[in-house]
Amino acid sequence: MENETPDNPDLPLTLTVDVQAEPPDLQDNTADLDRLRQALNRALSARGMDHPVAIPFRFMARVGQAFRDADFHGHAVVNVLDNRFECVDFSAQSPRELPAMALDLGTTHLEATLIDLQSGNNLARANRPNGQIKYGADILARIHYATGQKDGLAILQQAVVDSINQLAEDLAGQAGLEVEQIRALSVSGNTTMVHLLLGLSPYHICREPYTPFVGWPDPFFGVEIGLALNSGAPVWVLPSIGSYFGGDLISGILASGLDEQENTAMLIDVGTNAEVVLGNREWLIACAGAAGPALEGGVARMGMRAGPGAIEHVRLDRDRWHLAVNTIDNKPAVGICGSGLIELVAELFLAGIIDIRGKLRRDTEAEPEARQRFIRERLVQDEDGLSFIIVPAEETGHGRPVTLAQVDLDAMMRSKAAMYAILTTLVGQVGVEFADLDTIYVAGAFGKHIDPRAAITLGMLPDLPLTIYKPIGNSSLAGAELVLRSEKARRRALLIGQKITYIELNVNQEFMIRFSGSRFIPHTDPSLFPTVPIIKIDEGA
Amino acid sequence: MENETPDNPDLPLTLTVDVQAEPPDLQDNTADLDRLRQALNRALSARGMDHPVAIPFRFMARVGQAFRDADFHGHAVVNVLDNRFECVDFSAQSPRELPAMALDLGTTHLEATLIDLQSGNNLARANRPNGQIKYGADILARIHYATGQKDGLAILQQAVVDSINQLAEDLAGQAGLEVEQIRALSVSGNTTMVHLLLGLSPYHICREPYTPFVGWPDPFFGVEIGLALNSGAPVWVLPSIGSYFGGDLISGILASGLDEQENTAMLIDVGTNAEVVLGNREWLIACAGAAGPALEGGVARMGMRAGPGAIEHVRLDRDRWHLAVNTIDNKPAVGICGSGLIELVAELFLAGIIDIRGKLRRDTEAEPEARQRFIRERLVQDEDGLSFIIVPAEETGHGRPVTLAQVDLDAMMRSKAAMYAILTTLVGQVGVEFADLDTIYVAGAFGKHIDPRAAITLGMLPDLPLTIYKPIGNSSLAGAELVLRSEKARRRALLIGQKITYIELNVNQEFMIRFSGSRFIPHTDPSLFPTVPIIKIDEGA
Repeated sequence: MENETPDNPDLPLTLTVDVQAEPPDLQDNTADLDRLRQALNRALSARGMDHPVAIPFRFMARVGQAFRDADFHGHAVVNVLDNRFECVDFSAQSPRELPAMALDLGTTHLEATLIDLQSGNNLARANRPNGQIKYGADILARIHYATGQKDGLAILQQAVVDSINQLAEDLAGQAGLEVEQIRALSVSGNTTMVHLLLGLSPYHICREPYTPFVGWPDPFFGVEIGLALNSGAPVWVLPSIGSYFGGDLISGILASGLDEQENTAMLIDVGTNAEVVLGNREWLIACAGAAGPALEGGVARMGMRAGPGAIEHVRLDRDRWHLAVNTIDNKPAVGICGSGLIELVAELFLAGIIDIRGKLRRDTEAEPEARQRFIRERLVQDEDGLSFIIVPAEETGHGRPVTLAQVDLDAMMRSKAAMYAILTTLVGQVGVEFADLDTIYVAGAFGKHIDPRAAITLGMLPDLPLTIYKPIGNSSLAGAELVLRSEKARRRALLIGQKITYIELNVNQEFMIRFSGSRFIPHTDPSLFPTVPIIKIDEGA
Repeated sequence: MENETPDNPDLPLTLTVDVQAEPPDLQDNTADLDRLRQALNRALSARGMDHPVAIPFRFMARVGQAFRDADFHGHAVVNVLDNRFECVDFSAQSPRELPAMALDLGTTHLEATLIDLQSGNNLARANRPNGQIKYGADILARIHYATGQKDGLAILQQAVVDSINQLAEDLAGQAGLEVEQIRALSVSGNTTMVHLLLGLSPYHICREPYTPFVGWPDPFFGVEIGLALNSGAPVWVLPSIGSYFGGDLISGILASGLDEQENTAMLIDVGTNAEVVLGNREWLIACAGAAGPALEGGVARMGMRAGPGAIEHVRLDRDRWHLAVNTIDNKPAVGICGSGLIELVAELFLAGIIDIRGKLRRDTEAEPEARQRFIRERLVQDEDGLSFIIVPAEETGHGRPVTLAQVDLDAMMRSKAAMYAILTTLVGQVGVEFADLDTIYVAGAFGKHIDPRAAITLGMLPDLPLTIYKPIGNSSLAGAELVLRSEKARRRALLIGQKITYIELNVNQEFMIRFSGSRFIPHTDPSLFPTVPIIKIDEGA
């Protein structure tokens, strides 16, 4: 790539360029904006950047006036687009900072950072709910609202634009700035969220053959969709590969560096869907499937997102038959998040209280007596069938017990089966063994909180040394930050989009077979999980 | 230039591209707009055009919807910008034509043609007054209004935008089209008119060191300034070289081909200013000066633009002492235009009624008697001094005589002196002789109507064989048509802007000396005009 020579530095999405032009005189009375453009071309060429500089019409008046007011010396604000530069502002003084916003545009939550593109420093971080939630809890509901309601698309667009503007206020407030000082925005989100932000119809996203309206939108100005950022702020959207493979996962690949590594590695991102990428610097293959809901708080009756009062860790002492739970922020328990659920089910499986089919069992006659008492106290029959009391009512934050019902457990089993089937289908496609993998990056809250040991016990993740698993946090946001900072990252994002192979699981026979085989704990073929103890339960109990 | 290979055809400003894309299926469910962009890149590359295709944000929804509605087969409308293509529309049917408007944006008049960029045919031609006239008759008055009145700039911008919209209506009406079907606009005008159209301050244009706000504005969409053309119509503005050297003259160079010729030639464009270019394909030099007003109808009391009833030709039969005049459209005379004025003064000079200093003379005692009677009838003393009656009151269109007053003649003498001084200064700068010139292109109404013989007699144009002088009509409009039709012409326009040397006459000592020497008929040095008879007048008369 042309910008990898030493003379050709990596470029953020927006930068300032020091301009020292001579004032006009009778020997050279070149027009102001042409003078500026010439000076910018000189300054950028000297730094190895040879694309032409344009001054878009809407900025001509303000840029030209500012250039003259500054007596032709100062700092131009320049956006770095695909094959050109656009000058959008000018100031006499060097701006103290060049704030830019990186946005993880989630279906339920937005998370964002404010970065100073001049120093590279992070200035602020904040999150907010996605204001579209009141029009639909999940992606499908949003698509239906956008395409089935009068003005639905415009209403959803306005809702998320409002949320982003509020988030920008939060960030600016933290950093002691005005929103209008934010000079660029990068957006990493799933395909549907990007469509709704851009006001483009998501109608065909959820209909065979699952075709988005746009995958890689050309950059545009935030003001064009009503964002309150600086009017010269460009919006750079991480490209989507398909309806179920959004820019958020491209971000994950960027953040993990999967596309630049010699050794084959894997990236797992569990949100509403489980999205998985396998590959290295030569090739990338990906698929996505509905593995997530039970793990993300959307399905389990007591499930919740990782937030204060969510049970995130569970340990069952099988000598003393004592269940210890940890909640986020040590608040009284109000629910259980994905990582807590996985640990709970793994512990109950190892204790013989959940069988290999994922069913709660009431074999209260088995020894020892402490175990019998534990089961009598914890396993109750309620209107939904058997339930396991994780935290009794008197210890919770809402006065009701936090429980695991069999129906929740069934959803959880489907999710874990789907996850393992996705992983095995993907490696099967390219003839790679799990043991060949260098690293498995685990993104998001799932990656941050999960105990891989418990996930292996359930047969959700492959039975590999625990050091293989690396949590990488909110990689959607990390990718958005990268593309703000780096033209190389922006090019990588587009290249990833071009070179990745996407497997559509909805039409994959092999996936269905693997899914069935994965609906046991850990698996119908326990030899795949040599480190998981085989639990014998008296089937007659 | 890269587009001069046989594979790389010349491109109009807007074109249609035949797109035959496969509909999405599960094997290839690439997003609609990405699919279109890929198909466009393929189609354009196959025709040797390798710039990337973008779909600007404001057109994404309409283009994507139309592409899908057309079942992925049809015709994309693509704008050809500097180093990229922009797709702005799509239709299932091949558009019958691709109308584009070329505009000569004059200070007093707008003239425009409508061209079908598909067939190359001219569809319509029309003209209208510049609606800014009521805010100021000439360039300086407009600048003062724009910069001295509250909202002056916005008022003037709106006035000319309204005029252009009306002109577009005229053109569309002639061609049986709607204004919204006009897909592109090129604009050729003087520097100030371009500033007022763009809403950019002309304040420094008329103040030393005469610096425009912008010389070469990047292309923009007509809707951005309120034009009623198709919302995807780009506006391409011919670049200006300086405050007094506008895109209209670049157009003249394009239309004459001066910049491509091996032999040195000259271009003369007389409007409000006289603008002159000398050069060939190796070099170009230009200057401009206030030589025009007396010739354009702005100063002479009876002067007018070339329009119905304007006297355009004058012959004095010196045997019968009979003055014959031709008016435009053979309407009763109402005034005299530049060409008529030049012929009149030349005829009166040859008749000894105007002397070498450019003064009307009443030597009614000289023979023959018919001459005496002619002079007595025609030369009258009125409140402004001596006047020559060109057409008596009873024969005119307005019932008043059409006359040439001494004050008008003085203005005319200054103009002709300025013109010759400009020409000699220019050739003097590069050491070229007039006799070395291959061709002298004479642009505009002046070129169309003028009798070069009369202009030589006055010492306004150099004494060269008459075949050297070639009228080229409205070359401002012709250049605007060229840049609509041809990317090569657009590149030439920018190259001309870069390679031309502009001489500022306001600060040129040599010009002032030459100007003084030119204030005689034909010149203080009559040997420069060997074909002009030397008229002896009794100085005592």
